[in-house]
Amino acid sequence: MRVEIIAIGDELTSGRILNTTSGFAARQLFEAGYEIYAMHTIGDTPALIGEALKRAIERVDAVLVTGGLGMTDDDLTNEAVSMALNRPTMPNLEVLANIRRHLDSITSAPVGQLEKLAWLPEGAEVLNPGSRMAGYMLVHDGTPVYFLPGVPRQMKQLLVEHVLPSLATWGNDHKLSTYQRIFRIFNLPEAEVNRRINTLDLNKAAHIGYYPVFPEVHLSLTIRDREAENAEKLFTSCKKAIDTVLGDAIYGHDRDDMETIVGQLLHEHNLQLAVGESCTGGLIAQRITNVPGSSRYFLGGVVSYANSLKTAYLGVDQRLIDQHGAVSREVAEAMASGVLMKSGADIGLAVTGIAGPEGGTEEKPVGTVYVGIATPGGNWVSKFQFDGDRQQIREMTAQTALDLVRKYLLQS
Amino acid sequence: MRVEIIAIGDELTSGRILNTTSGFAARQLFEAGYEIYAMHTIGDTPALIGEALKRAIERVDAVLVTGGLGMTDDDLTNEAVSMALNRPTMPNLEVLANIRRHLDSITSAPVGQLEKLAWLPEGAEVLNPGSRMAGYMLVHDGTPVYFLPGVPRQMKQLLVEHVLPSLATWGNDHKLSTYQRIFRIFNLPEAEVNRRINTLDLNKAAHIGYYPVFPEVHLSLTIRDREAENAEKLFTSCKKAIDTVLGDAIYGHDRDDMETIVGQLLHEHNLQLAVGESCTGGLIAQRITNVPGSSRYFLGGVVSYANSLKTAYLGVDQRLIDQHGAVSREVAEAMASGVLMKSGADIGLAVTGIAGPEGGTEEKPVGTVYVGIATPGGNWVSKFQFDGDRQQIREMTAQTALDLVRKYLLQS
Repeated sequence: MRVEIIAIGDELTSGRILNTTSGFAARQLFEAGYEIYAMHTIGDTPALIGEALKRAIERVDAVLVTGGLGMTDDDLTNEAVSMALNRPTMPNLEVLANIRRHLDSITSAPVGQLEKLAWLPEGAEVLNPGSRMAGYMLVHDGTPVYFLPGVPRQMKQLLVEHVLPSLATWGNDHKLSTYQRIFRIFNLPEAEVNRRINTLDLNKAAHIGYYPVFPEVHLSLTIRDREAENAEKLFTSCKKAIDTVLGDAIYGHDRDDMETIVGQLLHEHNLQLAVGESCTGGLIAQRITNVPGSSRYFLGGVVSYANSLKTAYLGVDQRLIDQHGAVSREVAEAMASGVLMKSGADIGLAVTGIAGPEGGTEEKPVGTVYVGIATPGGNWVSKFQFDGDRQQIREMTAQTALDLVRKYLLQS
Repeated sequence: MRVEIIAIGDELTSGRILNTTSGFAARQLFEAGYEIYAMHTIGDTPALIGEALKRAIERVDAVLVTGGLGMTDDDLTNEAVSMALNRPTMPNLEVLANIRRHLDSITSAPVGQLEKLAWLPEGAEVLNPGSRMAGYMLVHDGTPVYFLPGVPRQMKQLLVEHVLPSLATWGNDHKLSTYQRIFRIFNLPEAEVNRRINTLDLNKAAHIGYYPVFPEVHLSLTIRDREAENAEKLFTSCKKAIDTVLGDAIYGHDRDDMETIVGQLLHEHNLQLAVGESCTGGLIAQRITNVPGSSRYFLGGVVSYANSLKTAYLGVDQRLIDQHGAVSREVAEAMASGVLMKSGADIGLAVTGIAGPEGGTEEKPVGTVYVGIATPGGNWVSKFQFDGDRQQIREMTAQTALDLVRKYLLQS
């Protein structure tokens, strides 16, 4: 089943706002087994909106339109739909009632403007009638067309709660059972992932996709079959084969991320982590604390950007820095043990390196990074040489450091 | 002059990778004075690529195509262009020579595959002949069409260094002088920005756009005129008027960001900053250290996620935490003075708050945040109540904290 996505708004075509909703929709739809034929981003121009809509209705099985449903003068989607599909707009009484109730509670609002939200093209079925900002569906020439607001939070909620369930019961394609999994892989190049998968000689019905997403590689396994039992059986055997050849290079699945997986492992082992960061400048701590509930296993740490802070906060001996340099195996280990001891954590993680663009030398070029792990059972330091710009080196360093903690926890 | 952007790649239509290059291109082109007519994202499907390309050539003045130029079997852009525009592919000798030189230095590469990169549609003018991954331009029916690789770094560099200069000398429209500025505003709602601008009664030739980009508001001023002198005069007077009504709510212009502006001010004042972060968990330090050269004015700091680290590293008295709670005016001030004293910085910045989703109480709901600034001249603490989810509260907190440092530096 083929779907086309149309995003509307001058703020998107000016590049002022990055269109994230279309990508979100594409991913949700793709994971639910649909094919995305094309995605368009156009300005608030009725003629262009109408043309894009009509072409999409002709050539695909379902259309998703986002944006341009608001109350200001430059929100023109309903007007464009009305003209292009020859469906006069009419007030939706339920939405109108919600708006009027809302207006009663405030006095100074421009009534006419707000009521604009309730005037929808003929045939519109409102997806969320309890709301003032309506998403709706139209069936035109047998093709379902969904209209959602452009505000990311509203759009995402309506897509997941209304559009996907509605599409799932539409047409014939829902009789095809779809099984899909994304394997999230780190620290194995795409070519090597490819090589290992090719040794498996998987059944032709198993569709494999490769997607490098810096700094990771994602691999998708998709199986579709009219018989759910067949699909599930093949899916299970393929999944097992992939797990076998890729092993612990697979750090997670579907929407996992590294910081969530490391957090789960720390929580399961009932261990607490603290960090000492130099070149990443807080990026590791920031990623870990992005996860709600991370205070259960993360104490915090030190961003020792200046050498004086490595001494003052992490207890690194100044002579160690003088002798070996701040970017060295010895200092990485001292930072990790320093934060371990003073914080009272079970694991101390430290990174020191040269993120660039300046500060590199012949002996230690930009991208040289040491990662230290200190535990009551012993310390480890690993050296890396990363490529890329400042931001990429910092991201690779943070991801690699978290991955080392993950591997330590898997083995302990 | 109207431009259409076409991004090609199955990884984009599956939503696996968010298309950031089209948004980047739209912004660059918009800021250079072009109008973006439409942006399309399509899979590696030759028929669809050809159709989108032909329609764009018919209706706009320039076309930008990204992606599908690589060496693997699913890179089909050149083939699609060749078929749609009836231009046989031919090897570009210079690019071919670069590839062969590269192949001489490695032995195991698949020669045929790599040489595919050099076969371009007839009439292609290579933008970067020194490279193995060529971007190129074709003029078809009088319309310039630019083809760039989809890899963000290569694409962005070619766009800025080759496409924009080439477009600037194309057609008639370059005779229209364009002056444009983006004002980056923080801590003033869009409606209030709007109200203040409306009091100015600006010349109708001055085009004003509003773009809320969480957590900021961006305002664009654009003036186009056949007479450069007129345009510049009007631009200067409008800019001055806007500066007057918005004052220091404007923190920067065009591509500035808050951390860069704060860094410049610290450097100008020859002052060093250190931070103590609780709810932001390293986000402030991470943003500051994203800026190359930040070691000149940033020492580092402490991520005191657990209360024990507020005591151990920042010297916050445990009784203060017991009496007032970790999220309090008193603890924010103690954290800021603590990091100031121990790090030897000139300014200590500290944040403590409740980012949620859990941890809120009736007295201190989710979103309660204290920001403390400590200097040898005195300490200040400000209280905030932010809305939004965990990530938004963390971002608002970091941005607000940096903005407070900016305002302190502007006044000192």
